Amino acid sequence: MSKSIFYHAGCPVCVSAEEDILNLIGASNVEVIHLGESKERIPEAEKAGVNSVPALLTPSGNVLHLNFGASIADLKG
Amino acid sequence: MSKSIFYHAGCPVCVSAEEDILNLIGASNVEVIHLGESKERIPEAEKAGVNSVPALLTPSGNVLHLNFGASIADLKG
Repeated sequence: MSKSIFYHAGCPVCVSAEEDILNLIGASNVEVIHLGESKERIPEAEKAGVNSVPALLTPSGNVLHLNFGASIADLKG
Repeated sequence: MSKSIFYHAGCPVCVSAEEDILNLIGASNVEVIHLGESKERIPEAEKAGVNSVPALLTPSGNVLHLNFGASIADLKG
């Protein structure tokens, strides 16, 4: 596995995190999976250790659970 | 601001996250700050919105709070 996988569920906070991650790591290095739309990918995400979204599964197999200090503006978005 | 800043406090989980982040983003693109050793940087971190460590302040000004599903092995490390 050489790509990272970004799991999300389409919430505004997820989308904001996704933009940052894609900018930082490079879009070509990240597979983006919307677990709300691709429910068949949930088992693999769980198996990899994803407990919440947004989360980034790194090429080394670690799961980084990402979490903004969500602003009110985000929650309203 | 063009660099990301990775704030941590030296715990094993932080170090593991740091290695992943540096690999993913590139060490030259990240300033690493140990808030346990550099306590004078805590106010700026708080001002940026850092509520916990490890956290990554992105060039766009968003704070990604990173959180492994910490394993027992990590906690023992």
